[in-house]
Amino acid sequence: MKKYTELYESIKDMITSGELKEGTKVASVRKAAAIYNVSITTVQNAYFELCADGYLIAVDKSGYYVTDIINKNNYINENIKNSVSNVKYDLTGTADEESFDFSLWQRYIKSALRQTQRMTTYSEAKGEYDLRLAISDYIKNSRNIIASPDRIVIGAGVGALMHTLASLLKGRKTVSFPDKSFTQGINIFSDYGYKVFTRYKDAEVIYVSPSHMTRWGDVMPMKRRLELINYSDKNNSVVIEDDFENEFLYNKMPTPSLYTLGKGNIVYIGSFSAMLLPGIRISFMVLSDELLEEFEKKSAYIAQTASKTEQIALASFIRDGHLSYRIRKIRRLYTNKTKTFANILKEIMPQSEIEIGENSLQIILKSKFNGKKPEFEKYGLKVIIKEQKNNEITLILSPSGIKQTELEECAKAIKKSIV
Amino acid sequence: MKKYTELYESIKDMITSGELKEGTKVASVRKAAAIYNVSITTVQNAYFELCADGYLIAVDKSGYYVTDIINKNNYINENIKNSVSNVKYDLTGTADEESFDFSLWQRYIKSALRQTQRMTTYSEAKGEYDLRLAISDYIKNSRNIIASPDRIVIGAGVGALMHTLASLLKGRKTVSFPDKSFTQGINIFSDYGYKVFTRYKDAEVIYVSPSHMTRWGDVMPMKRRLELINYSDKNNSVVIEDDFENEFLYNKMPTPSLYTLGKGNIVYIGSFSAMLLPGIRISFMVLSDELLEEFEKKSAYIAQTASKTEQIALASFIRDGHLSYRIRKIRRLYTNKTKTFANILKEIMPQSEIEIGENSLQIILKSKFNGKKPEFEKYGLKVIIKEQKNNEITLILSPSGIKQTELEECAKAIKKSIV
Repeated sequence: MKKYTELYESIKDMITSGELKEGTKVASVRKAAAIYNVSITTVQNAYFELCADGYLIAVDKSGYYVTDIINKNNYINENIKNSVSNVKYDLTGTADEESFDFSLWQRYIKSALRQTQRMTTYSEAKGEYDLRLAISDYIKNSRNIIASPDRIVIGAGVGALMHTLASLLKGRKTVSFPDKSFTQGINIFSDYGYKVFTRYKDAEVIYVSPSHMTRWGDVMPMKRRLELINYSDKNNSVVIEDDFENEFLYNKMPTPSLYTLGKGNIVYIGSFSAMLLPGIRISFMVLSDELLEEFEKKSAYIAQTASKTEQIALASFIRDGHLSYRIRKIRRLYTNKTKTFANILKEIMPQSEIEIGENSLQIILKSKFNGKKPEFEKYGLKVIIKEQKNNEITLILSPSGIKQTELEECAKAIKKSIV
Repeated sequence: MKKYTELYESIKDMITSGELKEGTKVASVRKAAAIYNVSITTVQNAYFELCADGYLIAVDKSGYYVTDIINKNNYINENIKNSVSNVKYDLTGTADEESFDFSLWQRYIKSALRQTQRMTTYSEAKGEYDLRLAISDYIKNSRNIIASPDRIVIGAGVGALMHTLASLLKGRKTVSFPDKSFTQGINIFSDYGYKVFTRYKDAEVIYVSPSHMTRWGDVMPMKRRLELINYSDKNNSVVIEDDFENEFLYNKMPTPSLYTLGKGNIVYIGSFSAMLLPGIRISFMVLSDELLEEFEKKSAYIAQTASKTEQIALASFIRDGHLSYRIRKIRRLYTNKTKTFANILKEIMPQSEIEIGENSLQIILKSKFNGKKPEFEKYGLKVIIKEQKNNEITLILSPSGIKQTELEECAKAIKKSIV
């Protein structure tokens, strides 16, 4: 451990324990160096770090003071807690935090931050060139999609890309979604004035999510894929293929993307949030000829939303093979979790029907139910209710975000909340 | 300097100089430790860093190899260069890169990256709570705006916020912009089906930019501000106040924001890109009661676009006073640059009319012109042409992004390109 980290920790401890109170002036750099018997640089580094983390504040020509961080943190944490409510077990398919190599990602961010020159200009509308190049390589290997970086557009999440698409597709009036659960896309397109349908094959724009057709993870069969692209091609409609969760298709033969099968107007969408972390919002789309042309026309007033630093970091991360490695790793992890969780549920709820979804990420649980209100909140659960009628309830459970060691407790909480 | 940085640099040099060629296997960690007489950890750290920066790649169970980074970099740089063309002097108002304290910003990002837990969940639709709290404090001090964090919404740039606004304002049909130069906003609202006008006081939505009314930086006078808010209040229209470049109003009395003056339906927009770096895309808006209510209704399908890491970093950066400090610093710097540049132009182009814009950031240059095409590109210039007719041309020049030492050369290039 570096010396300044030690000094940092010991001062931080004094502040968090309340020994050094808000407003207290700490020893000057020179004095502290003498007290702790370290160099002036060491103290300076420690003080800088304490300022950056909000424990100290530098007051011009006076010195360093303890901030109100403890009170503020309590206040902030209270608010953050209130805003996320009391969810202890989120079963809606969040990321497994234990498996993410934070220090590796931090390394890549630090490296990106060193490219200072690139931060002084605005992003290209399509996103950083090196990330688009890395994605072009990546989808060639993982999805057999041949697309030059020029055809790839980055955005801060699928929502941001849908905004761009709704604008590029202007002139068309109808859009179809698989079902009503795709609220974000439905709302964006309807805000733009499109008429929204579900499962309407004659819509001018057809949004599909072939690897995750419904909330319980049905996968679109090959035959249906071919029908869809043939029909839409004949019909001159645009297909938006959101390849959501394709990377997690573990037990299946790899299914070719519509983009690869098709000849017509197909837009392919991929996203990294689910594979990396929800906090990293980077998605991309591969445009068709027509939409690419449209994009070039409008690019002067389409602003890139994704973080430049994160784009640069992700480009190197993918190029070095870490993305592929991570996907293999969490694919195993998530599908194992699903299996384990299903087995635990079968054991403790023998009366209920338990089935693993086609993409191995979701469990469908159908249980007798005494008819009163299910008490999910009381037991800290966040789940998706597929159906609830009379004395039966059907849940969709994605345990990917639950810690391995808490699967059993979580299953017990489910039992308690409905039985 | 830490030992591993030395090792990092020397291996990097060997790779960039071509001494270590693509595909070469480098010494194993153990062997390298012996060769360079350093610890195994030192070698490991250096190799990790070289991997993160793309010079080496680790191959499972085999060792570390030199990547194709040199060829790839040449290729990438060629493409990045092509995409930004040959601009040497960008006079459209870019950021001064010399004045930005990159290492300070890096410190804050690193500190944000340590908050690993916050990265494992999706953002709140409004943005990170601590950033909204810091902004709430900041605008209270700098703009006299009293707004709780609950009323503040973050977005990745003004464009992202305009998308949200166009959706929240749904039901209204007409919008007014100051003039046709506000292309981004105009295009977003017209994509959403609004009828777009310029300077139309009876529009249902009125977008104004009081500190930067035109591309040459006119400031809206107090009298006009009061008229606007009274009229729009009577008319029940919504005013979007984009406080663009207000922070740079140096020579003027501080002008109160419309948000502070008004009583009605006013949305205040502020942005950090111009104050920090174009590569950091974070903007915010303060919603009116009506729009806040609308936002809460729709929040389930509005996704936050701004980077979580950068939001967390910026929150501490503002709280520690660095934003206010930076604004004071670049305000002086930019206005001095404008003055110096105007003086140089007056000296070398004595026949032309030269005037400094009201916000002290732009210069309006009117010059005789021989009638042929101006050769801006040939001389590496990027400028805004306000008007060009017969034998006269009027330019708007913002020298903020030009290096102090290159102002004279830049002025000479302008002279050559039009005379």
